[in-house]
Amino acid sequence: MVNETQHTCSASSSSRSDGGSSSGSESSKDNSRCSTPVLDADRHERLREKMRRRQDAGDKWFSLEFFPPRTANAAVNLISRFDRMGAGGPLFIDVTWHPAGDPGSDKETSSMIIANTAVNYCGLETILHMTCCNQTKDDITGHLQKAKRLGLKNIMALRGDPAGEEWEEEVDGFNYAVDLVKHIRNEFDDYFDICVAGYPKGHPEAESYEADLKHLKEKVFAGADFIITQLFFQPETFLKFMKDCQAIGITCPIIPGIFPIQGYHSLRQLVKLSKLEVPQEIKDVIEPIKDNDAAIRNYGVELAVSMCQELLDSGMVHGLHFYTLNREVATTEVLKRLGIWKEDPRRPLPWAVSAHPKRRVEDVRPIFWASRPKSYIYRTQEWDDFPNGRWGNSSSPAFGELKDYYLFYLKSKSPREELLKMWGEELTGEESVFEVFTCYITGEPNRNGYKVTCMPWNDDPLATETNLLKDQLEKVNRRGILTINSQPNINGKPSTDPIVGWGPSGGYVFQKAYLEFFTSSEIVTALLKVLKKYELRVNYHIVNVKGQNITNAPDLQPNAVTWGIFPGREIIQPTVVDPVSFLYWKDEAFALWIEQWAKLYEEESPSRMIIQYIHDNYYLVNLVDNDFPLENCLWQVVEDTFELLN
Amino acid sequence: MVNETQHTCSASSSSRSDGGSSSGSESSKDNSRCSTPVLDADRHERLREKMRRRQDAGDKWFSLEFFPPRTANAAVNLISRFDRMGAGGPLFIDVTWHPAGDPGSDKETSSMIIANTAVNYCGLETILHMTCCNQTKDDITGHLQKAKRLGLKNIMALRGDPAGEEWEEEVDGFNYAVDLVKHIRNEFDDYFDICVAGYPKGHPEAESYEADLKHLKEKVFAGADFIITQLFFQPETFLKFMKDCQAIGITCPIIPGIFPIQGYHSLRQLVKLSKLEVPQEIKDVIEPIKDNDAAIRNYGVELAVSMCQELLDSGMVHGLHFYTLNREVATTEVLKRLGIWKEDPRRPLPWAVSAHPKRRVEDVRPIFWASRPKSYIYRTQEWDDFPNGRWGNSSSPAFGELKDYYLFYLKSKSPREELLKMWGEELTGEESVFEVFTCYITGEPNRNGYKVTCMPWNDDPLATETNLLKDQLEKVNRRGILTINSQPNINGKPSTDPIVGWGPSGGYVFQKAYLEFFTSSEIVTALLKVLKKYELRVNYHIVNVKGQNITNAPDLQPNAVTWGIFPGREIIQPTVVDPVSFLYWKDEAFALWIEQWAKLYEEESPSRMIIQYIHDNYYLVNLVDNDFPLENCLWQVVEDTFELLN
Repeated sequence: MVNETQHTCSASSSSRSDGGSSSGSESSKDNSRCSTPVLDADRHERLREKMRRRQDAGDKWFSLEFFPPRTANAAVNLISRFDRMGAGGPLFIDVTWHPAGDPGSDKETSSMIIANTAVNYCGLETILHMTCCNQTKDDITGHLQKAKRLGLKNIMALRGDPAGEEWEEEVDGFNYAVDLVKHIRNEFDDYFDICVAGYPKGHPEAESYEADLKHLKEKVFAGADFIITQLFFQPETFLKFMKDCQAIGITCPIIPGIFPIQGYHSLRQLVKLSKLEVPQEIKDVIEPIKDNDAAIRNYGVELAVSMCQELLDSGMVHGLHFYTLNREVATTEVLKRLGIWKEDPRRPLPWAVSAHPKRRVEDVRPIFWASRPKSYIYRTQEWDDFPNGRWGNSSSPAFGELKDYYLFYLKSKSPREELLKMWGEELTGEESVFEVFTCYITGEPNRNGYKVTCMPWNDDPLATETNLLKDQLEKVNRRGILTINSQPNINGKPSTDPIVGWGPSGGYVFQKAYLEFFTSSEIVTALLKVLKKYELRVNYHIVNVKGQNITNAPDLQPNAVTWGIFPGREIIQPTVVDPVSFLYWKDEAFALWIEQWAKLYEEESPSRMIIQYIHDNYYLVNLVDNDFPLENCLWQVVEDTFELLN
Repeated sequence: MVNETQHTCSASSSSRSDGGSSSGSESSKDNSRCSTPVLDADRHERLREKMRRRQDAGDKWFSLEFFPPRTANAAVNLISRFDRMGAGGPLFIDVTWHPAGDPGSDKETSSMIIANTAVNYCGLETILHMTCCNQTKDDITGHLQKAKRLGLKNIMALRGDPAGEEWEEEVDGFNYAVDLVKHIRNEFDDYFDICVAGYPKGHPEAESYEADLKHLKEKVFAGADFIITQLFFQPETFLKFMKDCQAIGITCPIIPGIFPIQGYHSLRQLVKLSKLEVPQEIKDVIEPIKDNDAAIRNYGVELAVSMCQELLDSGMVHGLHFYTLNREVATTEVLKRLGIWKEDPRRPLPWAVSAHPKRRVEDVRPIFWASRPKSYIYRTQEWDDFPNGRWGNSSSPAFGELKDYYLFYLKSKSPREELLKMWGEELTGEESVFEVFTCYITGEPNRNGYKVTCMPWNDDPLATETNLLKDQLEKVNRRGILTINSQPNINGKPSTDPIVGWGPSGGYVFQKAYLEFFTSSEIVTALLKVLKKYELRVNYHIVNVKGQNITNAPDLQPNAVTWGIFPGREIIQPTVVDPVSFLYWKDEAFALWIEQWAKLYEEESPSRMIIQYIHDNYYLVNLVDNDFPLENCLWQVVEDTFELLN
């Protein structure tokens, strides 16, 4: 993403006037000024602009198609697949519309909610498919309004399959995709980017290939911004189609739909649905190996790679659209082989950004939600005016309460049985809780031989950055400093650093050391004595579940703990320790003990009572070492505390 | 100033609840959040709060009284005296009200305009005196409204001297200071802090000392916040007065008025006016040396120091108010001897802040006006919503045009004849202009033996910080790179650094190297070729008087060039290179060639035509080296440019 940003800069710089044209004070007085540093043009452009910019720059890109899941569990899995495949850097994903699956509803399996989650919680540019046949105008308008409200910006306008065999055109109804395109443009002006489908071999129901091209042209002229094609098996098919389109005046981007063959049955089913014919040479290879899934997939990958390569080499194709069938392996393999999968995607900010348009200026968050970004987005989803540089102008909007710990996109990927294995079928005391924390840090199996790969506060294994602190973290967790968040101090590493870097290249990133943990009131008492010695250097916030709060922070001022300095830009300070939001985080952090851990056990069971005891009596502590150029003193603070206790 | 800030922080930190009282999430949800980092409590408190805080902290302070000047030239001098004496750290200054001098008018010599300048352009907390006798209610209300509009926040409410001998009370008129106090509280509620006068020996017209104390109590109970006393000659006089005040229930601060004797005649005149009696032992010393000004001043300093010391030692006095008679030497000497003059005042920000209440959140300015802060304040005086963190939300308010180059507070301290001696009675070509720039940098006398101590773009000698770059600056100015602004790169020096430090202690300050200069189009052509090599590292803006603008900066984004990281705070970035305001600065920077320099010479004279030629044909260039941790590359850029030209 960052490479593109750089490109824009140099593009705008190359448009300088060299003493020629004037951009003097008169002309610039009316220019509006950015209120927030534009770190990443990708966050500010519409999809069609991104596409154009990539094309102008000669960058190749890809996109991924998914269908909505059937069950809530499958939804949880699909969202974590979005996170993983999103890391490879697709230009967008799209989510198909399942008329039979209540696609516009609030169900966790609906097309609408899956697309919503992709945009808002996974930060992916997303196209929502929408079909129009057999639907009323009001239904369609309602769906579109809802999509807009949720922050969706792109629609794939389709006819959809008529319900019965004997479908007839309805007068004044939506009979073709072109009607839907017109409707969107009429009702929503230029708000949505609109995509339409192209059929390289012609639509199976069209009178002719030529007639179908004419229909496509109508859709484009009605307001579509680009075309994604149905799958095809030979590159020539697409290249001919593209030339034919251009010949009749279709100039918008046309993106080939790529279907890596992943299995015999899925291919047969797809072919049946799409009424396409598989070329004989492919049939000849597949038939003999139809029972060997791995062999078919390997062949599918080879075939896709060679077809994609040929398309890209033609110079006519800049982006490739993949029909993933919700699977990861084959598509990822093809993309890696083509070299367009981003192995080391640069982070525009140290946290995962949301793709909702109203959040595009968001450039600062409290550090507390670092491992729970989806929860932070959820709790701030009602904010209108986004934190921009610093929070709001005078008062921050309230955080939403987190009641729905079981919302599918906030839920742990691991089922209850697995969590019990990791966190203990039976706890014998606070020490057994210390052990769970320690095993999570070290990666060593617990006493029953299970690795602890997630915690209530972090559904993923330890971050690479936290790994830098592993030895110290292990030591303190063993002794009851139960860490849930931390970062090392960084004094000006290049923004391209593979572990701590973020933002455009050519910059420098900085961090103050941070440590956040639960601990007993005995340890807190000793800690407070020790902290007196560090009064000028260490800021602390110490709070229990009842909200008793001890701090030495100047009143309500946030402390910037991550910042970056970049060429030609204002300073960015994306994470802060903010005293106000800490008290909201506190509610969530304490609740996770109960909601995610205690509730694994029977009521009144000793295990549950141990967790309840910790919840009721421990303190949540955060410490910042302000002296970032010196060696992190927080370990010494903890060491001094243990010494005082002995 | 910064010490106080630190004090506040630790005061607020010591009010922590240690597990006792609760400041949990419920109670904090309504708290407003600072929208800008509070660097300096002094900027946010009212005068009475500052006084109280200093008293609570056991800090000693001083204040300075001035009267309005008689002539415009004297006004220019007084303002530069404000700047110099303001550097010593007075808690406030006050400006007396001269009923005969049209005190509420817009004249540059009026009490109102002098106080306005002190607040807005010199950044001094200021009390405006105001008298009420012989004035209508409407007049008085008008003055107060104007004072409020200008950003004045404190009034010294006085009766003033009745006009004729036979003064009689007017029914419903303003007969006493107490009437004015009541009027201010009635009409302006709590907006102003009000000071009243106390007479340690009783008012000369009062029936008795006791009766006068009663009048004073009435003034305080009518709403005055503190008392400044008339001068006195013996510490006992004040201490008795203070005890008597307390005895009758006056609890507000009472500040002794100190008059360092500075000359025989000024003493006699003052004594006559104030109807005070000079104690015999003082007369005995003074009479024999009455013609020796220096001896009298030395004695006056000794006397004042010993009296002040006795007052401070009493433990009853926290602040001292000095009647300066608009002179600097004696008062400064007393303050230095007492150890309450700030030798090395810490800067809350790298530029001089304004004391106008609406500017108290101002924490970022373009670097261009670094040497012309008064002009920046003037040109942005109409802005309502102040640049806070970054500029405005979407569009910046327009800069006011600078037409009035001869406004007394924007004017050079040096008269025309001196400027001619510095900048040349007669110029022989562009080279003689290069020489003037070079002499300003080096501090060497010019070819006629005069030192160049100011330039049109900077009315003061080179800043200490710029001195770090002196050798390089000399070299480039000799060759026609006419520098008007620069700063070295700084990679994390302590915020207490005597040269580049600013802000609270315990922090670190940073800078990107900056260089701004006028130069010929030949040099610009070569420079642009050289800059291609530095494309990713150096940002540039190059503009001529017509507004032809060449830049490689990402569209309209400011580039932060000075920033600081402080314990427990957000990042502060007080200076930026802002592309939009650069074009406004360009107008001013080019105009200064004509307004300040060319106009020294006759129309059509060769000297004038040389300056006019430069104005018409040169470019204004600014360069930023973004790679602040490396050695400043801007000198190499210039070196490469000269090499290319040879």
